[in-house]
Amino acid sequence: MDKFEERTIKTENIFDGKVVRLQVDEVELPNGKTSKRELIKHSGAVAVIPITKDNKILFVKQYRKPLEKTLIEIPAGKMEEGEEPEVTAVRELEEETGYTTNDLSLVTSFYSSPGFADELLYIYITDQLEKLDTPPDGDDDEFVEIIELTLDEAKRYVEEERIHDAKTNYAVLYLHALGRM
Amino acid sequence: MDKFEERTIKTENIFDGKVVRLQVDEVELPNGKTSKRELIKHSGAVAVIPITKDNKILFVKQYRKPLEKTLIEIPAGKMEEGEEPEVTAVRELEEETGYTTNDLSLVTSFYSSPGFADELLYIYITDQLEKLDTPPDGDDDEFVEIIELTLDEAKRYVEEERIHDAKTNYAVLYLHALGRM
Repeated sequence: MDKFEERTIKTENIFDGKVVRLQVDEVELPNGKTSKRELIKHSGAVAVIPITKDNKILFVKQYRKPLEKTLIEIPAGKMEEGEEPEVTAVRELEEETGYTTNDLSLVTSFYSSPGFADELLYIYITDQLEKLDTPPDGDDDEFVEIIELTLDEAKRYVEEERIHDAKTNYAVLYLHALGRM
Repeated sequence: MDKFEERTIKTENIFDGKVVRLQVDEVELPNGKTSKRELIKHSGAVAVIPITKDNKILFVKQYRKPLEKTLIEIPAGKMEEGEEPEVTAVRELEEETGYTTNDLSLVTSFYSSPGFADELLYIYITDQLEKLDTPPDGDDDEFVEIIELTLDEAKRYVEEERIHDAKTNYAVLYLHALGRM
């Protein structure tokens, strides 16, 4: 057992939604005292960095209600329960951009906010894109617009905070570090 | 008004905690239909990349209850309401590592999980660290251990997923891209 481990004394389920669950755990701390932890449960998410044949990156522009603003992000979506991340990756790519791929490489994975949420995010990259004749319908409450940018344009968008989320900032830095564009 | 904007019809407050608030908004979509959005409200967070005089990076090892595991992360903490990010940065650096600084540079900022949370995270860097004679007490429910790593060691920890969260993966990639270590 890890010396800093916090033993759960009691779990209170607060909310069970479509995207998140919220519970409050009473825990025993390493020093024997007790405290409460607010925990967001999430099924995980997958993002894709799609590189076109002429070396541009595909992004989606999307309104984000939690921020009350529009962000430009790499295509991404929530994993269904028990789903393999590659399956989520292809589905979200198809729904959000109208392209598909059978060539995905894992770039990295990380927990988005380990202090209060268990969301694990996978990031894949592909430069093998095939345009679909008939793109599948996406979620009926999701409205997105595709944007193609060069890496230099994407870096400027990061500076301007039009690109401003963890996975997309990471993706732009990753492509910069790769030095291939 | 943004063409994808979602107008709030009704807000239901579900939970008001120490770290997060949860509300469910009923929204009008761009096509006139309605949907629900689960929104986590968070006051924001600040992280610091602390570089020592002998070119190592200071990390903290910490048990993360949402994941039921221990992660190695750069020092970070939640902003108090209305607090400037630099103030949070210095406080968390002092509490978690016992060092202070009066020289912070902003690396980037990003939203951790824009699909369901409004948490904005700032990342600073400093190579001007001063050891405190008497480090301040941290939160009384927080138990951390300091770890010094070279950049090569940190990259290996990323591969081994002992470093496995958005801000710290970003920090390691940033230092790699900088090419200075």
